Amino acid sequence: MTSSVQSLVEQMLTGSRRALARLISHIENEAPEATEALALLYARTGQAVTIGVTGAPGTGKSCLVTELARFYRQQEKTVGIVAVDPTSPFTGGAVLGDRFRMRDLAGDSGVFIRSMATRGQLGGLARTTFDAMRVLDAAGFDYVIVETVGAGQNEVEIAKVADTTILVEAPGMGDDIQAIKAGILEIADVIAVNKADRPGVQNTVRALKAMLELGHRKRAVSHHGQMMMQDDGGGTIVDDFWMVPVVQTIATQSEGIADLAQAITDHQSYLHESGTQVERDRVRLKNELMQRLQSALLSDLLQKTSAETLNGVLEQLVVRELDPASAVQKLVSV
Amino acid sequence: MTSSVQSLVEQMLTGSRRALARLISHIENEAPEATEALALLYARTGQAVTIGVTGAPGTGKSCLVTELARFYRQQEKTVGIVAVDPTSPFTGGAVLGDRFRMRDLAGDSGVFIRSMATRGQLGGLARTTFDAMRVLDAAGFDYVIVETVGAGQNEVEIAKVADTTILVEAPGMGDDIQAIKAGILEIADVIAVNKADRPGVQNTVRALKAMLELGHRKRAVSHHGQMMMQDDGGGTIVDDFWMVPVVQTIATQSEGIADLAQAITDHQSYLHESGTQVERDRVRLKNELMQRLQSALLSDLLQKTSAETLNGVLEQLVVRELDPASAVQKLVSV
Repeated sequence: MTSSVQSLVEQMLTGSRRALARLISHIENEAPEATEALALLYARTGQAVTIGVTGAPGTGKSCLVTELARFYRQQEKTVGIVAVDPTSPFTGGAVLGDRFRMRDLAGDSGVFIRSMATRGQLGGLARTTFDAMRVLDAAGFDYVIVETVGAGQNEVEIAKVADTTILVEAPGMGDDIQAIKAGILEIADVIAVNKADRPGVQNTVRALKAMLELGHRKRAVSHHGQMMMQDDGGGTIVDDFWMVPVVQTIATQSEGIADLAQAITDHQSYLHESGTQVERDRVRLKNELMQRLQSALLSDLLQKTSAETLNGVLEQLVVRELDPASAVQKLVSV
Repeated sequence: MTSSVQSLVEQMLTGSRRALARLISHIENEAPEATEALALLYARTGQAVTIGVTGAPGTGKSCLVTELARFYRQQEKTVGIVAVDPTSPFTGGAVLGDRFRMRDLAGDSGVFIRSMATRGQLGGLARTTFDAMRVLDAAGFDYVIVETVGAGQNEVEIAKVADTTILVEAPGMGDDIQAIKAGILEIADVIAVNKADRPGVQNTVRALKAMLELGHRKRAVSHHGQMMMQDDGGGTIVDDFWMVPVVQTIATQSEGIADLAQAITDHQSYLHESGTQVERDRVRLKNELMQRLQSALLSDLLQKTSAETLNGVLEQLVVRELDPASAVQKLVSV
């Protein structure tokens, strides 16, 4: 097996798209080959500019990602894209398929697009996405973009894997939705108000700026304006010295794309100059390490525990003879 | 400490709302008292009918929950409500506050409402919510309703803690959003199309029924119509013998509430008669056990590992000297 993975990695490093696709499939399938390949590739990671693009359905994210990729290609940069699809928790199939426009990029050897399904498990989603981005990074793509859909915790997870997170909004999505977005706003490094030719765009921009201003002020006050960067255990990093820009785009007409790219470049400069980049990387790796440790420790324990013991404890839980915390004590001390 | 928790539990069991509120606070704060209290209460759980209510913002979920609670009160049943708020990953504060209507229920000793913030961690959200529901269950409430907001993985997690999950929809939420809902549709046991006096309600009902029909047929075909119930590892349970009803409601006018309550009763009967109830309980407890084991094992390891070793490994990760999987091996084998 080792030699086959090794040769796959070598082929990928010399530019084989087929080898690249197969490596990402191994990651998606959580195959043992993935672990081996990542160990071989890891030293080459940390080179690409990683960009996360998130937002509610209907904001035109895919179209925007396509245009951004096209822009980078005009600058002779290469682009790898991971499009994360939410899947049904039952069928395992991808629910969304609105990535038709991305097909325009097919045939360009400087672009690699991969759609990944989530398998319904959040930790798994973040991990496989992160690992796929690593493979693209190691493969030498200048930009690695991860796109994901929705308006929940998912996005918070995905945002944590990218250096620059773009939140895509659109005018007229309804005030109801604004409130829930407040949480997501805070993970955004750049906001793109897409479909900026729609009525109400000025209201949307104003509302977003007001919310950003409020959030920024609140943090500045509570931390006395000091530079603050902390890992809250959930791996979020707070810092007060980046004012999130709001950029207007009309992706379908390729408008505002250069402005968006400039905002990304500005954010990258900020990350590097302030030292935030290194800090983000460290927090991300620490969180990943903790998650992987949990999984490894649980596997170990389950391997050492007989099915009989495990089922016995589960049965006691079901009949309410044993509470969950005591059940854990019992299994850990076996 | 033991005696104080014990007395708190006793007070709660004799009807003290203050003791109940304090116990739930302990759970929310993940205080050691919570573990102790839950061990004392666990044997009394499994009695209440548990209902999950989920759906996108703007569908009128809170209003519907309020009306449902009122309906049960008219039947002389008691109701405990846990309202889960998405919080900002940064400030820790709850983002939504549209539960004004629920205040109408305040002052009724047969109703207990508790708002819980999520703290940004998904596993934590599911666990503290589940534990709060347990306390309400043990306290003797006939119905325990958990309400949550959004349209992502969050809801899938929350749905797993309730016996009957109601997905609330509303007409005119846009076709864009339909696709992403397909995943959530499959966790619904009952669908309520609220705001049924709005234009387009028939289209919404028709679209939902078509999606449900499709999902049902797909499953029936792939499993040859056999009763199937499986734990996919993520703890979802598939079964083919419950046709999800679509009920129209206008919560603001208290219309359709009896129909909704009937659909819930029908689903409860189905769960009990088919044996699905026991199976759901078992899968839920197994998942909880695995999650708790992971946390406990990681805590143990971190306690045994020196900060120096841990930071050393993290530093090697940061400089790309060591890949994450090898880092895990290194820490586990210390």
